Amino acid sequence: MVLSNTISMKVLILAGGGGTRLWPLSRSHSPKQFQPLLNSKSLLEETALRARKLTSWENIYVVAPKQYRKEIFKHVKKLPCRNLILEPTPRNTAPSIGLSVVRLVQQNHHDVLVVLSSDSFIQNENQFKQTIKKAVKLASSGEYLVTLGIRPTYPETGYGYIRTGKKFKLGSHFVKKFLEKPNKAVAQRFINQGEYFWNSGMFIFRLDLMLGAFSVLLPKTYNALLETELFLKRKQTQKAAKAFAKCEEISIDYGILEKFQPILVVPSHFGWNDLGSFAALQKVLPKDYRGNVLDGAVEIESDNCFVKNESKKLVSLIGLNHIGVIETDDVLLVCDLKRSQKVKDLLGKLKRDKRYQNLI
Amino acid sequence: MVLSNTISMKVLILAGGGGTRLWPLSRSHSPKQFQPLLNSKSLLEETALRARKLTSWENIYVVAPKQYRKEIFKHVKKLPCRNLILEPTPRNTAPSIGLSVVRLVQQNHHDVLVVLSSDSFIQNENQFKQTIKKAVKLASSGEYLVTLGIRPTYPETGYGYIRTGKKFKLGSHFVKKFLEKPNKAVAQRFINQGEYFWNSGMFIFRLDLMLGAFSVLLPKTYNALLETELFLKRKQTQKAAKAFAKCEEISIDYGILEKFQPILVVPSHFGWNDLGSFAALQKVLPKDYRGNVLDGAVEIESDNCFVKNESKKLVSLIGLNHIGVIETDDVLLVCDLKRSQKVKDLLGKLKRDKRYQNLI
Repeated sequence: MVLSNTISMKVLILAGGGGTRLWPLSRSHSPKQFQPLLNSKSLLEETALRARKLTSWENIYVVAPKQYRKEIFKHVKKLPCRNLILEPTPRNTAPSIGLSVVRLVQQNHHDVLVVLSSDSFIQNENQFKQTIKKAVKLASSGEYLVTLGIRPTYPETGYGYIRTGKKFKLGSHFVKKFLEKPNKAVAQRFINQGEYFWNSGMFIFRLDLMLGAFSVLLPKTYNALLETELFLKRKQTQKAAKAFAKCEEISIDYGILEKFQPILVVPSHFGWNDLGSFAALQKVLPKDYRGNVLDGAVEIESDNCFVKNESKKLVSLIGLNHIGVIETDDVLLVCDLKRSQKVKDLLGKLKRDKRYQNLI
Repeated sequence: MVLSNTISMKVLILAGGGGTRLWPLSRSHSPKQFQPLLNSKSLLEETALRARKLTSWENIYVVAPKQYRKEIFKHVKKLPCRNLILEPTPRNTAPSIGLSVVRLVQQNHHDVLVVLSSDSFIQNENQFKQTIKKAVKLASSGEYLVTLGIRPTYPETGYGYIRTGKKFKLGSHFVKKFLEKPNKAVAQRFINQGEYFWNSGMFIFRLDLMLGAFSVLLPKTYNALLETELFLKRKQTQKAAKAFAKCEEISIDYGILEKFQPILVVPSHFGWNDLGSFAALQKVLPKDYRGNVLDGAVEIESDNCFVKNESKKLVSLIGLNHIGVIETDDVLLVCDLKRSQKVKDLLGKLKRDKRYQNLI
């Protein structure tokens, strides 16, 4: 997408998440982004097609650990080969975005990069496109990192929040602070006060600005990244892996965003959900008149339930409220949807027992 | 068991129930009495072994519809061939007990018959034996039908109740009235008033007394039964079936007990449960410290749940309270244990859909 004679942009899709929050649908060998959770397309494919509405395939990049290589081309068939950026080992988002920046800056250091997660739900594609356009414009001066903030509709405790400060151009605000996932009372206060947004995890910046940010805020990682890229160019794979392993294992939020200034937030209204739990999935999928997502199940006196049935069995429910039932070929999970984030405790329990290793 | 020179007794086990209340564990082709619900033995086998503690195999009889013939000998291997009484068609309990009475009265009309259901839980076998002894003694005069009443421990709405009147010998009372399953408030009143017992569905009588009761209270059925027995003796199977079909399709409770006088009730304390729901099963099985029956499932923050897992899958629970999870090879049922009796509504729904016929 060329916004004016002087702004050109690229899209980077983060496809490295090993998300276990939707276990047993997602597994360590087949995480959330590769799952067809909303319709017949995987979330990664949906994200790539959404990116395609912003720009051409040659400007769309995907970054992921190298073991996902094959899987990614299955889901994004039109991705140009050279546009897949492979991390030698998985090292969290700061190194993976850093490696992408180091790679892309060589083409045109004034390009604006739009970073998208590959496992979110976006309802209104048109609104999304308009918001991205605005963010790209704001980022194009090379002075600001730009994030997309979602206006909260209820006190969600599963998201990070952004506190906004002074107003700026094009309806944006300066970011005052990034805030961790709050408890219910704090989340309610955020909503009442009105100056807080959900952190969507999508951000936009000019490549040279981000490169500078790495060099100042994560100098050790910065050096490791330059070294990695050098070895990769020479096809010295093992040396590259060794260099990449020197990167700090840290998220872009902790490593860069929370320390950087100035950051802008663009208030966004495109209907966003991080699909980080079965309750979140339940929220965005079509429901029957009792609020159930049934996936073929038969119910009696049940409300607001979420069923995902990957087996050929008949699933039947009686008298349930707000319960998730995930039936796969080797695992059944039944959970209170309000407590489905405890799946990590369950996985912790399973990890300690050898019988369950292959189910994680 | 010969209690004195003059009393001899027989035991009749009712094995005809087509119970669907524990669906999908029990199915129309494999009802509850054939299931190993409490341990590795089926409920019918447990009942037969319990009867064996009362008398010898030659005095133990089983009555069931003829399609269960093979199944019954699988579960009660030592049952003498001639002691299986086969109903030509299933016609509820009055005809099946009536046919048994017509058959057995020919051997010795002064024999006392102990009628046991084949699908209940009894905790204390010794207490049970003592109670039966008492009931047999009371029945042996040939003046009284005798039932076993269970002292209620909580306001159960799934059982019928017996209201008692004047005291009689051996700690027994006269029955004032049989009462249908009450609602919660009424059940609570029954408990507060203290003169009510749960109807265990077990009863004891002298054969000649019951024969007389049929002739007076169900004369049409009585005649049909005499005719049936005659044809069966002559091995005229089809004619017997036709005659038996003329019996009224009515339970022994409605057909005889509620109209007969005098009936005695023997207060019983042997720990009884009709296993008529998953909640009932949950009550009698060994539980973990959080009150769960897990059957190998892994749980996080879950209490008072009941899992029965007939598949090889891992079953996992998060944040559930009082939920039943029944995983079989072709059906999964997840239910609120307090509403598990609604399984009949679910089956009604399934019956209307051809896809599910073979699952019922």
